[in-house]
Amino acid sequence: MAKKYVYFFGGSKAEGSAKMRELLGGKGSNLAEMTSMGIRVPAGFTISTEVCNEYYQNKENYPPELDKQVRENIKKVEKAMGAKFGDKEDPLLLSVRSGARVSMPGMMDTVLNLGLNDTTIEGLVKKSGDRRFAYDCYRRFVQMYGDVVLGLKPEEKEEDYFEVLIEKKKKDRGVKLDTELTADDLEDLVRQFREMIHEKTGAEFPDDPYQQLWGAITAVFGSWNNRRAIEYRKINKIPDHWGTAVNVQSMVYGNLGDDSATGVAFTRDPASGEKRFYGEFLVNAQGEDVVAGIRTPRPINRESKKDDKLVSLEEEMPGVYRELEEVYQKLEGHFREMQDLEFTIQQGSLYLLQTRTGKRTGFAAVRIAVEMVEEGLISKEEAVLRVAPEQLVQLMAPVFDQEEKFKAIKGNRLLAKGLNASPGAASGKVVFSAEDAIARAGEKTILVRLETSPEDIGGMNVAQGVLTARGGMTSHAAVVARGMGKPCVAGCGELDINYAKKEFVVRGESVREGDYISIDGIGGEVIKGELKTYPSEIVQVLVNGTMKKEDSLLAQQFLALMSWADDVRRLGVRTNADTPRDARVARGFGAEGIGLCRTEHMFFGGNRIDSVREMILAEDLDGRRKALEKLLPMQREDFVGIFKEMDGLPVIIRLLDPPLHEFLPHKDEEIEEIARTLGVTPEKLQAKVVSLQEYNPMLGHRGCRLGISYPEITEMQARAIFEAAVEVSKAGIKVIPEVMVPLVGDVREFVNQKEVIVRVAEEVMRDSGLSKADGFKYMVGTMIEVPRAALTASAIAREAEFFSYGTNDLTQMCFGFSRDDADKFLPGYVERGILPAPPFQTIDREGVGELIRMGIEKGKAAKEDLEVGICGEHGGDPASVEFCHQVGMDYVSCSPYRVPIARLAAAQAVLKQRK
Amino acid sequence: MAKKYVYFFGGSKAEGSAKMRELLGGKGSNLAEMTSMGIRVPAGFTISTEVCNEYYQNKENYPPELDKQVRENIKKVEKAMGAKFGDKEDPLLLSVRSGARVSMPGMMDTVLNLGLNDTTIEGLVKKSGDRRFAYDCYRRFVQMYGDVVLGLKPEEKEEDYFEVLIEKKKKDRGVKLDTELTADDLEDLVRQFREMIHEKTGAEFPDDPYQQLWGAITAVFGSWNNRRAIEYRKINKIPDHWGTAVNVQSMVYGNLGDDSATGVAFTRDPASGEKRFYGEFLVNAQGEDVVAGIRTPRPINRESKKDDKLVSLEEEMPGVYRELEEVYQKLEGHFREMQDLEFTIQQGSLYLLQTRTGKRTGFAAVRIAVEMVEEGLISKEEAVLRVAPEQLVQLMAPVFDQEEKFKAIKGNRLLAKGLNASPGAASGKVVFSAEDAIARAGEKTILVRLETSPEDIGGMNVAQGVLTARGGMTSHAAVVARGMGKPCVAGCGELDINYAKKEFVVRGESVREGDYISIDGIGGEVIKGELKTYPSEIVQVLVNGTMKKEDSLLAQQFLALMSWADDVRRLGVRTNADTPRDARVARGFGAEGIGLCRTEHMFFGGNRIDSVREMILAEDLDGRRKALEKLLPMQREDFVGIFKEMDGLPVIIRLLDPPLHEFLPHKDEEIEEIARTLGVTPEKLQAKVVSLQEYNPMLGHRGCRLGISYPEITEMQARAIFEAAVEVSKAGIKVIPEVMVPLVGDVREFVNQKEVIVRVAEEVMRDSGLSKADGFKYMVGTMIEVPRAALTASAIAREAEFFSYGTNDLTQMCFGFSRDDADKFLPGYVERGILPAPPFQTIDREGVGELIRMGIEKGKAAKEDLEVGICGEHGGDPASVEFCHQVGMDYVSCSPYRVPIARLAAAQAVLKQRK
Repeated sequence: MAKKYVYFFGGSKAEGSAKMRELLGGKGSNLAEMTSMGIRVPAGFTISTEVCNEYYQNKENYPPELDKQVRENIKKVEKAMGAKFGDKEDPLLLSVRSGARVSMPGMMDTVLNLGLNDTTIEGLVKKSGDRRFAYDCYRRFVQMYGDVVLGLKPEEKEEDYFEVLIEKKKKDRGVKLDTELTADDLEDLVRQFREMIHEKTGAEFPDDPYQQLWGAITAVFGSWNNRRAIEYRKINKIPDHWGTAVNVQSMVYGNLGDDSATGVAFTRDPASGEKRFYGEFLVNAQGEDVVAGIRTPRPINRESKKDDKLVSLEEEMPGVYRELEEVYQKLEGHFREMQDLEFTIQQGSLYLLQTRTGKRTGFAAVRIAVEMVEEGLISKEEAVLRVAPEQLVQLMAPVFDQEEKFKAIKGNRLLAKGLNASPGAASGKVVFSAEDAIARAGEKTILVRLETSPEDIGGMNVAQGVLTARGGMTSHAAVVARGMGKPCVAGCGELDINYAKKEFVVRGESVREGDYISIDGIGGEVIKGELKTYPSEIVQVLVNGTMKKEDSLLAQQFLALMSWADDVRRLGVRTNADTPRDARVARGFGAEGIGLCRTEHMFFGGNRIDSVREMILAEDLDGRRKALEKLLPMQREDFVGIFKEMDGLPVIIRLLDPPLHEFLPHKDEEIEEIARTLGVTPEKLQAKVVSLQEYNPMLGHRGCRLGISYPEITEMQARAIFEAAVEVSKAGIKVIPEVMVPLVGDVREFVNQKEVIVRVAEEVMRDSGLSKADGFKYMVGTMIEVPRAALTASAIAREAEFFSYGTNDLTQMCFGFSRDDADKFLPGYVERGILPAPPFQTIDREGVGELIRMGIEKGKAAKEDLEVGICGEHGGDPASVEFCHQVGMDYVSCSPYRVPIARLAAAQAVLKQRK
Repeated sequence: MAKKYVYFFGGSKAEGSAKMRELLGGKGSNLAEMTSMGIRVPAGFTISTEVCNEYYQNKENYPPELDKQVRENIKKVEKAMGAKFGDKEDPLLLSVRSGARVSMPGMMDTVLNLGLNDTTIEGLVKKSGDRRFAYDCYRRFVQMYGDVVLGLKPEEKEEDYFEVLIEKKKKDRGVKLDTELTADDLEDLVRQFREMIHEKTGAEFPDDPYQQLWGAITAVFGSWNNRRAIEYRKINKIPDHWGTAVNVQSMVYGNLGDDSATGVAFTRDPASGEKRFYGEFLVNAQGEDVVAGIRTPRPINRESKKDDKLVSLEEEMPGVYRELEEVYQKLEGHFREMQDLEFTIQQGSLYLLQTRTGKRTGFAAVRIAVEMVEEGLISKEEAVLRVAPEQLVQLMAPVFDQEEKFKAIKGNRLLAKGLNASPGAASGKVVFSAEDAIARAGEKTILVRLETSPEDIGGMNVAQGVLTARGGMTSHAAVVARGMGKPCVAGCGELDINYAKKEFVVRGESVREGDYISIDGIGGEVIKGELKTYPSEIVQVLVNGTMKKEDSLLAQQFLALMSWADDVRRLGVRTNADTPRDARVARGFGAEGIGLCRTEHMFFGGNRIDSVREMILAEDLDGRRKALEKLLPMQREDFVGIFKEMDGLPVIIRLLDPPLHEFLPHKDEEIEEIARTLGVTPEKLQAKVVSLQEYNPMLGHRGCRLGISYPEITEMQARAIFEAAVEVSKAGIKVIPEVMVPLVGDVREFVNQKEVIVRVAEEVMRDSGLSKADGFKYMVGTMIEVPRAALTASAIAREAEFFSYGTNDLTQMCFGFSRDDADKFLPGYVERGILPAPPFQTIDREGVGELIRMGIEKGKAAKEDLEVGICGEHGGDPASVEFCHQVGMDYVSCSPYRVPIARLAAAQAVLKQRK
């Protein structure tokens, strides 16, 4: 039997279902599901994602069985809709759309009204009784087909041939709007379009409906690999091999007069997560008009209204609205998830064109997940899986101080108000193009556009926030900004943007490129000048204590979700913190200890750096000891502060790691000044700087190599740690210090340093007068960041009490990539698909991961209770956290603000593994 | 039963044997063996190496059983020798010497004449009937015991208290020589010595013989860890845990008058390997006098004579000499190896004090091994094991041109003639101390000393050659220089050396520090000024063809040994060669292909570098292509030349590897000049230099990362390779190109480059007009030098046809050691025992080796016929070659001059594995 490539849906029967998302894509599987649920969906069929993959594997050829299956399904659609494809009396018209496993809004191509030609147009005229409508369809079809299938879509700065002809026609006819053109005008435009296409492409516009259909199908499959789609997949980590399905569906018309409409809706508020039906619609329009943001749509119901002048669907077509309400409740109940719907009303009849899981902000994600648990719709574990860890960033992102913002507004600095399309506060310099944003990537910028399009994604990625003049909550800018967790104010129609002058004017005020503005993605305000950003509600409740938990629903819901995550996760979550302040923040976010306290940062504060330099310049051991003695009390105080904050929790302190030259000045004028401070000649300092220079400092005299060369440094640091531990122990604080030796590659390096540490610990304990009962336990362990350490982990584990993976350096050495230099080629690597993701962001499982796995296996085999964690930046990356769980680490450690992300990711890792 | 720590030998019975070398040390086991063979050996016993290890493990305490076992064995010795330890009538005197598993000449301590005190001295006087002899023994004993056991041995620049007293005594007595002192003088000296010892150490000199014995035993064990011994072990790669044994043996006297003597002998010539009995002796002397080189010894027989004025042992004591001849033949036959003997003649009776495998030059090693096979004494496989691969260096080392040397001599530049103590020719600047040699380590130096001592080893190691004024063929300088493969002229008595003035005078000529001299370790000449060095005989026969094989016994024997090695070895041996000349040399030495041809070196020649720079500076692809087109014909010619030399053998060509900035100038004046040559502004060149700078170039934009960024470079190189292959194929030469992609860390990098290479190969082949039959096969493979490549070797092997381990970079990345910077801490690592050997010299088996093993396993599992080799510098290091054999590589590749070393090491690896 031939392989099945095509799946029909229509009437109330469907060959597919929601479970077949991988094969049929999100759109196709849900169309099938809705059909089976008895919801009114225009009949159609889905060509599976397998065809996409086979097409590309087979040098862009289709499986031979496909043509027959498509023809059979066309017959079924004809039967369901009572019209015939290519028929001159009652022609069936089709839409052809992409549909990948996950939504990639606006990334791929669509062709509507397919099946029209000079014969079938007459049937459509007769059938609709509206010649202007019919020719408007024909005009749209030829234009869309020309753009998408025949390749006339204008790239930036290219001429849009179709628009030129339309403009000319409008000018000739002395009208301003498209809608003012008559049926004859449109008929003439169709003729002009077809001639122009012939001229530009050298081929006649295809009249054969099947030829049209195959052209559109091929265009959709082809769009899977267009530049925008590839870029989108890269940003969103969607594998290339997923492929897209193609949905061929009979047309329904939202543009058949004032009893027709098209719209989109969310079953809950995608910005706040509030439980209310929320959406927008346009009367007498086709679906693409809403998403494109060209006309500002109207609210779907009274509740959604922001502007009293706009009449809602609830008010205008109450019957249809009630039907829509029933549908949305049915869908949310069925999918047990917030839905994003597309619907069309054709002459009073409601059709559903799509339902899918709705994108949402981090705020909404938490609220919806928690409230759905309260409603009994989903389990706590499902709730934990419903929030992408990365989304939590939004909850912790800074906001404007309401007072300051209010003052700015009172002070006439409010430039405009738009839609609060994506939450968060941002200030930055205005730029008017994605390129300019990228060029100023080092600065804070706000990208200001009439509307955004997929070409702008790169620029949105580097900007602090996005401001658009057109488009609603579901416009491209809004959807993408929410996905990125960037503040966005959209549809701010008052802005008069002039790209050429790099300026916008609003309420008589001119804002030029480089001027500061501030946007509030929660309130929708656009404010002139820079506004300071302030801690979010979560931070105020959990960290600063400046807000009570009782006053913050968000904080309560956040804590509920986090507690469910904590119930599930096996991995501990610690933090990387070098100061008491960082430690406090992290503890507020739920850190269960410090996984990495870097001592070198402490060497820079105040006049400590002078003592450090004195040590480096010392001629002999005595000189070094003298300088180190000055550092001792200061280091001790650092540790006292941190130990106090972490009362009862373990604190891993890493001994000095960077090469000594990092503490010396390198510019001539600095050298002179510092030599004066230190009381040495500039020549001597210069000579030291030169003698410490290295060809490859990354692989140089640093880490434990320093401690081995200068054991007195290790001694001082160990003394500071243990004296601090004694001090706080005496104050009744429970301290669990874990001393960590960096850059160990051989067990004998570790043993060398461990001997110094243990000796000092014993001395300090003995001299402390602390009784056994009042004393504290400590551990001595090592970073695993040199490949050789992972390879020889058995030997090291016999000596070390804990391992902490330093995956930044491990990645550098495993790949042979210098992080400081790799920017010259690494972006190209990701673009060319040589690497799936930048390995400094997400752990490379194949290579670096293999070393990690091996090190843990060998280490735990040698010492069963070996404590193993990670303290590289990967510790806060959800995909990497999942890997850490899989390989059996005991904890991850990450920066304070990523602690909740790691907690959630750790819980999800458990739940995903169970599946 | 108590553990046995002490092993007796005496009479003709021994508890030990030659097989117990590990337990009893070389000296002890052979003393036992000789005793059992019926050779006259003074009775004694050996305290095993286990005691040494337990002593150090147990905080310098002896096993409790030891004391009893020593006392029991003293009893046995007393019985065998008929004298009693500590007896006032007939006192047994003992020697206490070290004896490690391998000989460490002069490194550890010895005490002679032990057992004397104011009571026993009377017995010795009576027994010997020679009061002066007896007090000379006593004087020597107290002095030696004071030095060795009581710690009065003078360090450099310290006062030698004993010598001061002796000098004073001689002055008081108005005599010049020690021998002119009377018995009374010596008795008085003993008294003075003991008083001085009391004064300096605060303790009385021990009179109790057992106390003396334990002091001496402890001093010998202690000397295992003195600085010199540790340094010697480091240079000679002797593990610390081997430990030393202690040999306690009854004294015999070579200083009991003119019918007494002491000497050393070799059963074959240790310099040339010639089969002749060879040795030196001193009449009326104790053993240490010969080795110390204070008196120039006399030849043992007529054959050994270099100076007719000296009377040989053969002439002076023919009977004893014949006995000695019998003994040496018996020993060589028994041990089937060239022996190095120590003997003493006491009043006409011959005693053997030691026999051991004799150290020899590389020349001698080859000759002895081959001739012993011819004599039927050993098998070919044994012969292969008899030559240390590293020794072959000497056979290939340069010599002086005989003509030029003759002219220098005729031109009165011959300064002196000494003993040809270690073969090879060297020219360099004179230095007079080991410290000065080390300070000038970058220059060529000749270390000139009165005599050398273990303190000088570091200096000898960096000097080109060694010249001494005193000492014979068995002096410290001679033995150590031969071991190091350094030229040495010893015992050059005419030199009047003045350390203070840093000058020597000879035949009225003054030579100062920094002046050039030349020494010939084969002829023994010392020549003023610099002499050019020339290829060795082996090179002349095998490489240059300037000498016929028939005329060179050395070449014939070398080839015989190599052919036996080739019969045994499994590993192939290729060479690293970038030029036709290198390829030819290596082929002469038996290379079976090129394992690494680096193309970047070719980029520097002539005006090529201009084109390379033009390429780097090009603004775009076209500009780069234009520059590369200029390079193409030049690269092609390089490959043509190499392919011709390697007719019939595989040639691995590595694509461009170093970062581009290596091809640009870095100094301002160079930049200006080169900008002029290239016709660009200095600013533009400067900007390029800056833009290519890297923080860690080792981990930067290089290797295949360049080829991926600039595929046109790979294309040009591939084209040059395949066009050259076509050209030589047409000329009837068999070419087997293997194209190697450097720095691959992920299979997709490799595939990216392989696609370019294969495409170019196909194009070139298609355009070549070569028929299938006339064509050539080629392979595309990769370096394995990034840890990730080894970790992901399965995936890479599915695409690559061969692996070549780049162990230089692999070591850098596995350890995180920058080779260019590691000098700051790596020497300290080896000194502290953190690493057993510098990992850039010998493969680190635990870490880097683990990666290699893993890569081979995974690689060969994925592709059974994957070709695997090594092309890092380790490929010429014998210990690393052994490892490569063990892990199943197919070949090693090394520099041309190390090819024979690798061939021999590869054979030995097989033979060692069989054991």
